[in-house]
Amino acid sequence: MDDKVWFAELTMQEVKEAAKANKVIIIPFGSVEEHGSHLPLCTDSIQPEHVAVEAAKRTGSLVAPPIRYGVCTTTRFFPGTISISFRSLYRLAAEILEEFIRNGFRRFLLLSGHAEEEQMTALKLAAHNVMRRHTEEAKNGKLRVMVCSDYDFAYEFRGKYFSELDGHGGTIETSRVMAIRPELVKGKGNKNFQTLPRFEIIVEPMKFWPDGIRGDPAEASTEKGKFLNDHIINELVKLIDALKK
Amino acid sequence: MDDKVWFAELTMQEVKEAAKANKVIIIPFGSVEEHGSHLPLCTDSIQPEHVAVEAAKRTGSLVAPPIRYGVCTTTRFFPGTISISFRSLYRLAAEILEEFIRNGFRRFLLLSGHAEEEQMTALKLAAHNVMRRHTEEAKNGKLRVMVCSDYDFAYEFRGKYFSELDGHGGTIETSRVMAIRPELVKGKGNKNFQTLPRFEIIVEPMKFWPDGIRGDPAEASTEKGKFLNDHIINELVKLIDALKK
Amino acid sequence: MDDKVWFAELTMQEVKEAAKANKVIIIPFGSVEEHGSHLPLCTDSIQPEHVAVEAAKRTGSLVAPPIRYGVCTTTRFFPGTISISFRSLYRLAAEILEEFIRNGFRRFLLLSGHAEEEQMTALKLAAHNVMRRHTEEAKNGKLRVMVCSDYDFAYEFRGKYFSELDGHGGTIETSRVMAIRPELVKGKGNKNFQTLPRFEIIVEPMKFWPDGIRGDPAEASTEKGKFLNDHIINELVKLIDALKK
Amino acid sequence: MDDKVWFAELTMQEVKEAAKANKVIIIPFGSVEEHGSHLPLCTDSIQPEHVAVEAAKRTGSLVAPPIRYGVCTTTRFFPGTISISFRSLYRLAAEILEEFIRNGFRRFLLLSGHAEEEQMTALKLAAHNVMRRHTEEAKNGKLRVMVCSDYDFAYEFRGKYFSELDGHGGTIETSRVMAIRPELVKGKGNKNFQTLPRFEIIVEPMKFWPDGIRGDPAEASTEKGKFLNDHIINELVKLIDALKK
Amino acid sequence: MDDKVWFAELTMQEVKEAAKANKVIIIPFGSVEEHGSHLPLCTDSIQPEHVAVEAAKRTGSLVAPPIRYGVCTTTRFFPGTISISFRSLYRLAAEILEEFIRNGFRRFLLLSGHAEEEQMTALKLAAHNVMRRHTEEAKNGKLRVMVCSDYDFAYEFRGKYFSELDGHGGTIETSRVMAIRPELVKGKGNKNFQTLPRFEIIVEPMKFWPDGIRGDPAEASTEKGKFLNDHIINELVKLIDALKK
Amino acid sequence: MDDKVWFAELTMQEVKEAAKANKVIIIPFGSVEEHGSHLPLCTDSIQPEHVAVEAAKRTGSLVAPPIRYGVCTTTRFFPGTISISFRSLYRLAAEILEEFIRNGFRRFLLLSGHAEEEQMTALKLAAHNVMRRHTEEAKNGKLRVMVCSDYDFAYEFRGKYFSELDGHGGTIETSRVMAIRPELVKGKGNKNFQTLPRFEIIVEPMKFWPDGIRGDPAEASTEKGKFLNDHIINELVKLIDALKK
Repeated sequence: MDDKVWFAELTMQEVKEAAKANKVIIIPFGSVEEHGSHLPLCTDSIQPEHVAVEAAKRTGSLVAPPIRYGVCTTTRFFPGTISISFRSLYRLAAEILEEFIRNGFRRFLLLSGHAEEEQMTALKLAAHNVMRRHTEEAKNGKLRVMVCSDYDFAYEFRGKYFSELDGHGGTIETSRVMAIRPELVKGKGNKNFQTLPRFEIIVEPMKFWPDGIRGDPAEASTEKGKFLNDHIINELVKLIDALKK
Repeated sequence: MDDKVWFAELTMQEVKEAAKANKVIIIPFGSVEEHGSHLPLCTDSIQPEHVAVEAAKRTGSLVAPPIRYGVCTTTRFFPGTISISFRSLYRLAAEILEEFIRNGFRRFLLLSGHAEEEQMTALKLAAHNVMRRHTEEAKNGKLRVMVCSDYDFAYEFRGKYFSELDGHGGTIETSRVMAIRPELVKGKGNKNFQTLPRFEIIVEPMKFWPDGIRGDPAEASTEKGKFLNDHIINELVKLIDALKK
Repeated sequence: MDDKVWFAELTMQEVKEAAKANKVIIIPFGSVEEHGSHLPLCTDSIQPEHVAVEAAKRTGSLVAPPIRYGVCTTTRFFPGTISISFRSLYRLAAEILEEFIRNGFRRFLLLSGHAEEEQMTALKLAAHNVMRRHTEEAKNGKLRVMVCSDYDFAYEFRGKYFSELDGHGGTIETSRVMAIRPELVKGKGNKNFQTLPRFEIIVEPMKFWPDGIRGDPAEASTEKGKFLNDHIINELVKLIDALKK
Repeated sequence: MDDKVWFAELTMQEVKEAAKANKVIIIPFGSVEEHGSHLPLCTDSIQPEHVAVEAAKRTGSLVAPPIRYGVCTTTRFFPGTISISFRSLYRLAAEILEEFIRNGFRRFLLLSGHAEEEQMTALKLAAHNVMRRHTEEAKNGKLRVMVCSDYDFAYEFRGKYFSELDGHGGTIETSRVMAIRPELVKGKGNKNFQTLPRFEIIVEPMKFWPDGIRGDPAEASTEKGKFLNDHIINELVKLIDALKK
Repeated sequence: MDDKVWFAELTMQEVKEAAKANKVIIIPFGSVEEHGSHLPLCTDSIQPEHVAVEAAKRTGSLVAPPIRYGVCTTTRFFPGTISISFRSLYRLAAEILEEFIRNGFRRFLLLSGHAEEEQMTALKLAAHNVMRRHTEEAKNGKLRVMVCSDYDFAYEFRGKYFSELDGHGGTIETSRVMAIRPELVKGKGNKNFQTLPRFEIIVEPMKFWPDGIRGDPAEASTEKGKFLNDHIINELVKLIDALKK
Repeated sequence: MDDKVWFAELTMQEVKEAAKANKVIIIPFGSVEEHGSHLPLCTDSIQPEHVAVEAAKRTGSLVAPPIRYGVCTTTRFFPGTISISFRSLYRLAAEILEEFIRNGFRRFLLLSGHAEEEQMTALKLAAHNVMRRHTEEAKNGKLRVMVCSDYDFAYEFRGKYFSELDGHGGTIETSRVMAIRPELVKGKGNKNFQTLPRFEIIVEPMKFWPDGIRGDPAEASTEKGKFLNDHIINELVKLIDALKK
């Protein structure tokens, strides 16, 4: 039942029972970030929220209120990007985990639709430091935390069904949004396979990457999106089942 | 049109146009917090999100992704409350404002459904400090920020149509949730008009306030909720119109 | 005896005995802040210091060295205001409380003559967080902290003996300073009842509030001040007696 | 005139004039710290406050509200010591300097009666960093800050009129307090010339220094105190005169 | 000439000339971290220091004093690991960059022998934020910073001359240390190809990875090490040449 | 044996044994800082590193990787100085100590070749706070930390064999570097005995101190340097022997 999936739609008493049942808490993280001329700023938010809800339904887990603001480094100077600092994301993730632990929960999946290195490191660092503050429970396996991106699974098909170079706002991402919120896709962006310099720190990505995307959105389709989302949901269900053991 | 109301559903190009049009940005803040046995944890989030969307529709404004995690002091030790620190909320609000300013926006309404002193002070302090960093624009009126709670308006009817003592999870709040998401209201909580000590710092509010609410939810009705929400939306429209001048 | 009232005038040995006797520690907080053309910058400091000393004499309590620097938001850009940051006041209050606890004290009254929201929130947040670090003692009532402003009591007479709109530097405040340090009152300021915008964040209060006061200082008198101070002292004595139980 | 010496006793208008006259601001810093069985905790506060007021009278300077809480490392675990953190003292000093600068003042003397390395370093670091934020004015000599302890001058007589080993709570300090607030001196403490280990970090100074003092307070006299205070005041007047150039 | 390679071996005057010549500054970062039973804790430090010096010699660049303490997450609970926090490494890197910029340098290569995600993110974040503080120079190409690991190049041969799974303390790393400081290699560690869980946050890596290495050190040789180091030096020379343009 | 002196050249297993043997850990701190026209920037780093290694050899102690970046206030605006903040040095020292403690070590000597007040205070504050976090072990003498500068010993000969005014880059320092790394001494700097103002905070030391040194480097000799270094090593051996008790 949908109404049992969102943690924040429970009442005080229902939380007590959920904690007693040791339910897995999925916390979705996203970004508010340019995704080319054809995808919305919330692209990295609606994807993990969608697969989190589906995986929660299948596993009897709960989805915490999503954090849609993320750390955006590469795209920061494109219009529409609203980036928060590494430290703020780190603090938020750590504080929220601690509060769920205080409420009696011990199984967590932090799922980020925005997979940039700074974002993922902030989440992992938060999880690490929270676990160290609860060393005993962490060592005996009572407290368990996983951190991943849905793109850890989506990109398994690059070089297979999709271009090896497909990325931000490309075929995979456009397909997934078409399958989730088709009305938010506005036409097709331009194909773009240019790359950023490998090691240089860049403050003007537009020079290298004028459309703000990487890949060929014209290749996207709802069917591809459904296939990808289903695959991710299946993988998340496996992770959650592993957490429940 | 709904799809034009949510900032994060715009594309990169649409953001540029919205900034050029100097659209007002409404940022909703809430809490994840016990609201008695009959209301969901997201009570303080869905209320400002609802009125923000309605006011945005009427005024051509944009609603930024909500921050549903807030600072909860009084209710912190009840089950279900997930509180973040004052400093984290302060940082988030300040960083988000700075990013919108970098994107060209200059008119802001920070609207919090959670009206506890710590929450409101964090938001006001963030707004103050951001304005000081942009002193010139703040002084000549180019940059303008308002901070309020929908409860600044809802409580105008206390001592009039509602008990002077109505508060957290009481008649007003229950009515408003009934008008917005009726399926989330689970029965009626117990009437409770006990008060907390006036000056003493309390770590166990349950002693004074066993049900976690204040007021009489049995008096709530959808009609009262609609009346209240309409009033608040009207007041927000006035504030936004003033901001647009 | 006066010399027993000030904590910092005790010797090392006298502190040990005072801690053994579980004496209440009153910590006065103030501000250095414009109060119109007729009142000194230390107006919000000398009031709580005066009533704290009197209440301490009557209850055998101790007064800690006052913190005269406070957080001033509204008046910050008037001449004479020396404001510290929210975080610095928060840190100071929390560190001082922790040190008194380390010395064996367990009963505290934080009393601020400056009652602006940022100031009071910093003090309450500090007290809350210190109590959480001593959860056991906080829950079993061994450690108790109250936070209030003398204006919580002084303003009980607004709308009764004084204008409902009397405020910063008005009749009440001028009267109280006349009763405490008459030589610091320089003539009478102008009457002023203008208000600041309700929700807008203001960086130039002078536009709305040219004299920096609210109320009618010409109505002030030493008698009114004595009456107010006596009332506040009586209320503080009640709070301290409650703390001593 | 005394009432013109304390900055916080000025009104808003008087501050404007004082800033225009480029008056030197003296900021006294102290400690709340054991000083043996015969001296009060505020020993390090009343000394700089006394000499600051006298030097201000002679030079037409202003004394800011004192900060009586300091950083106490050596004496921290004796009864009565209320120490704040290095960082809090640093922040306070820097913020207060910045606010005076915003008000138009440009000449400062930070005077600490507590001369422990951590305390002095915090003040100097604050002054350095504030000057760096105003590099232009610092380089052309418009902004000038001095940081010293009254003990920089008092200890000039060690090995001359006083024991080379005289220190905390010894002959010099006891004499000075006798000359300032004789009623706060309670008998004579025991002579003690033991030293702490030179390089080892100590958490239990009582092992080495049971009485919490160093020196022979029985040698103290009001006359010696007056002589020392006069010498210090003369030296401060010279520093202030140099600042005024 | 060796003595011209180390920045800190220059005198004040030589620094001025080096800044005028716009020399590239290479800053080596390492770790103090277990590397199995056969390699020293400084394994990740001596490798980047060695290749940095060689590349500097060939390009007329300067090597800044290395930071040998790094952020170690995976190996933290093995004996010998001395990890600093993410924030401390971030601060160090940012402050050092700022100081070199203040001294007139504008070309930087941050080279880390420790390639763990937290370490690399801290360095990249520091570089990004420093560039943002110098936006103008960053945009017009006057200020340029590259961040890489020597393992970005060493691992290009995995799946080619070395096992795809070779890693921490394996054939590649052992070979490289043999070519640089052969006396520090103590026998051969055990072959180990076990992996850590992909997404789970681990506080006891010893469970999965008892020897603290990944790969087969018995396959290592001085020749392989020389080959690898030469390749890396060549790649670094190319990066530095690109920076010098 | 040299290879047993450097902590970071041990393997994981050797660390375990060293911790079991409760070996003293010496942590050298330096600076990257102008030392006149004749001495290298690393002057304050190579001195403590040299004497630390010698003292470690004689006492069976271990030397941790040096921190060559220090806090430079006086010399900050001379070419070549790369200063880090007080807070960064404090954090580094505290984190490194905590990690050694986690690894089982309990005896520490922090040795700084840079003896400026800010540097020494940061190290002492770090040591103090780490000891307070381990109060029990600190009180019963299991955990012991010493903090000193090699200049605490070198300057014992001022006013005896060397000028009372000899200082930064003077006879003593030049001699010591001649005895350690003669090839780094470039000619003789100019004699300079000017002093900085005693209390004023200075942002342009060049005005007072054009050559960046204090003393007469022409008086330096390798023999004097050897004598000084030997004396310091002997004193360090005594401290370490005291720590081992």
